[in-house]
Amino acid sequence: MKVIEGGITSAKGFKAAGAAAGIKYVGRKDMAMIFSEMPCKVAGTFTTNVVKAAPVIWDRDIVKKKGTAQAVVVNSGIANACTGQQGLDYCEETAEAAAKLLGISTKDVLVGSTGVIGMQLKMDKLKEGVKLLVPALKETKEAGTEAAEAIMTTDTHSKQIAVQLEIGGKTVTIGGMAKGSGMIHPNMCTMLAYISSDVNISQELLQQALSDDVNDTFNMISVDGDTSTNDTLLLMANGAAGNAEITEKNEDYYEFKKALNCVNTTLAKEMAGDGEGATALFEVQVINADSKEHARILAKSVITSSLTKAAIFGHDANWGRILCALGYSGVQFDPDRMELWIESEAGKMLIFKNGNAVDYSEEEATKILSEKCVHVTADMKMGDKEATAWGCDLTYDYVKINADYRS
Amino acid sequence: MKVIEGGITSAKGFKAAGAAAGIKYVGRKDMAMIFSEMPCKVAGTFTTNVVKAAPVIWDRDIVKKKGTAQAVVVNSGIANACTGQQGLDYCEETAEAAAKLLGISTKDVLVGSTGVIGMQLKMDKLKEGVKLLVPALKETKEAGTEAAEAIMTTDTHSKQIAVQLEIGGKTVTIGGMAKGSGMIHPNMCTMLAYISSDVNISQELLQQALSDDVNDTFNMISVDGDTSTNDTLLLMANGAAGNAEITEKNEDYYEFKKALNCVNTTLAKEMAGDGEGATALFEVQVINADSKEHARILAKSVITSSLTKAAIFGHDANWGRILCALGYSGVQFDPDRMELWIESEAGKMLIFKNGNAVDYSEEEATKILSEKCVHVTADMKMGDKEATAWGCDLTYDYVKINADYRS
Repeated sequence: MKVIEGGITSAKGFKAAGAAAGIKYVGRKDMAMIFSEMPCKVAGTFTTNVVKAAPVIWDRDIVKKKGTAQAVVVNSGIANACTGQQGLDYCEETAEAAAKLLGISTKDVLVGSTGVIGMQLKMDKLKEGVKLLVPALKETKEAGTEAAEAIMTTDTHSKQIAVQLEIGGKTVTIGGMAKGSGMIHPNMCTMLAYISSDVNISQELLQQALSDDVNDTFNMISVDGDTSTNDTLLLMANGAAGNAEITEKNEDYYEFKKALNCVNTTLAKEMAGDGEGATALFEVQVINADSKEHARILAKSVITSSLTKAAIFGHDANWGRILCALGYSGVQFDPDRMELWIESEAGKMLIFKNGNAVDYSEEEATKILSEKCVHVTADMKMGDKEATAWGCDLTYDYVKINADYRS
Repeated sequence: MKVIEGGITSAKGFKAAGAAAGIKYVGRKDMAMIFSEMPCKVAGTFTTNVVKAAPVIWDRDIVKKKGTAQAVVVNSGIANACTGQQGLDYCEETAEAAAKLLGISTKDVLVGSTGVIGMQLKMDKLKEGVKLLVPALKETKEAGTEAAEAIMTTDTHSKQIAVQLEIGGKTVTIGGMAKGSGMIHPNMCTMLAYISSDVNISQELLQQALSDDVNDTFNMISVDGDTSTNDTLLLMANGAAGNAEITEKNEDYYEFKKALNCVNTTLAKEMAGDGEGATALFEVQVINADSKEHARILAKSVITSSLTKAAIFGHDANWGRILCALGYSGVQFDPDRMELWIESEAGKMLIFKNGNAVDYSEEEATKILSEKCVHVTADMKMGDKEATAWGCDLTYDYVKINADYRS
């Protein structure tokens, strides 16, 4: 498996486009389209929030009942959440408009939304956008970038990745794009992430690979602890690579899953590191826990602690807050046995051991914590299970962005 | 029952003092003492954090095994958490020093700490402080205020309350003081709160009244979602009021409990409203829920949402975030049936109904949200249970305070 330059258009048969439809601001790209020349098997995971946005309901229905699709239309101005029946009708209208121009059926079109909650979509603008997108569809890398940029909200940069692997002598490509930033604490999957692949695989295994993998990737990141109403992760596979269809959990399946994990991890980490207002990616690895589930809970508890996040922003080795966050996670452990390490490009340092602070240099600790990616290892000394979670620091800019997001 | 001016020294037989022992800064009051002329029955609730500070272990042991005490010594410079056996030994040394001067036994002295985690206490300073405190003990209101000020860390003002009620023809007084500010998301009780009363009651019922009440008061507040290692709530009753001892759940018990609830609610709300960097108290009341437990979970989910807290700071009626936070709380409900109201001294307004935003005036909503105390009512339309939670807004100052708390 190797990482290649590219994104959502890298796999064979996939085209994309981005356009400025004037949904929220004039001139900003705010609509994206993904299109596969041939029908795709599609897998998805969605928000567990009781309040589900209309596009989540639309997409989930297609993934569960049909399991195939050929296009996705996304807007990044209005979330279409808390919009009642009208919001659901607008999903259908959007899909219908795209289907007509693409020559496919309405139920082959998935829709995605992100932005302000509670506002109704401006359907005239959306339909205009669809008319701009269809003729702009291209299979170039640039078209993928246009689409990745068009789904951004408060993201500071677009998030793309593509990998290639061999399955049965055939080159299989997986590409993806995502947007994150705020209201990021996925529970099933994150805000919006789209993965395309030309792998030939059964829909059942496609879904299983995705559902398994999100527990270690998108479900392990958090920006602010708020699980969005719109979280959507879609994985489309069109079979264009020509490998023999994967229909059982054989070596090909695990190869594919490993590559998918690389794509998902990369996008998830980028999302965490580009959290609203963030200046650093905050990576917490829990090792030697007594169960995988406990390792996950412990790691997530630290990356969601506001106090710890603020300390990371201040480059302050306030390890007591990390220990405190592990302690209130709900998982039992012995604080007197565990070890705490901090690490970054500037070095690695043991901070806490045998129930006490190690006699470390604050100056050196601050240097380690001043890097763009800060890693904490918590060694629970209880077993051999581990998990990693990704978050970001809590900054003035997070408050600024969210004190008047709508204005 | 009536609220009177006063605090921890208002109940008969209680004295207090505050002193500057130079534990963290020179000249700042950082040690407090409470002393009852006669032995007290004592009840307590403590942090559920796996990582428990040494004073929590010391106090819990006394409350559980002995149920009586006569004095409390608190320092507000160093938390004495994550300090191993040394930290526990220091608790005993502190209690011993105070006991000697007060002429009581070591196990009659409760200790409390708040401040930086992981640092060892400076015992010479603490012992000096005890020597200053004992001769300064007074039963005056001013002495109560000195003690209330001495337990503050990043609090902007001291928190005190006293109430009086009649039990069997006798005047019973309950007084209390508390400190809060950061790392406030109590799970059993909050950071540090001390209540004194001259009521005559069995230890068993004293503990039960306290344990019941914290679920609706201290356990319903949050500043930042971080459950401290030091949360301690102690209730001391010395019987000096002379009422017949309360030994069963009769009218006297419920009268006392009602008055205790008033004390706890007042201190808890003050703690939330004075959260680190806060500009507003954020009160969320969930009504017509299908169970008390669900009402509590829903209300707490909203006051802990960073996005909602930032919107309150921005006086932005971003109700979608409130609905989102209710939605990810883990409680099932029908978003299309519920109603959302905002309220403050500036007015009251329906915002969301029948699955859609009501056509409200943003200008008027901003006016309502610009007051010092903002109230949200979520009417779940599922039953008749309710709960209220208290939090605060998320501000630049929260980040500022916590980005370099230790320096």
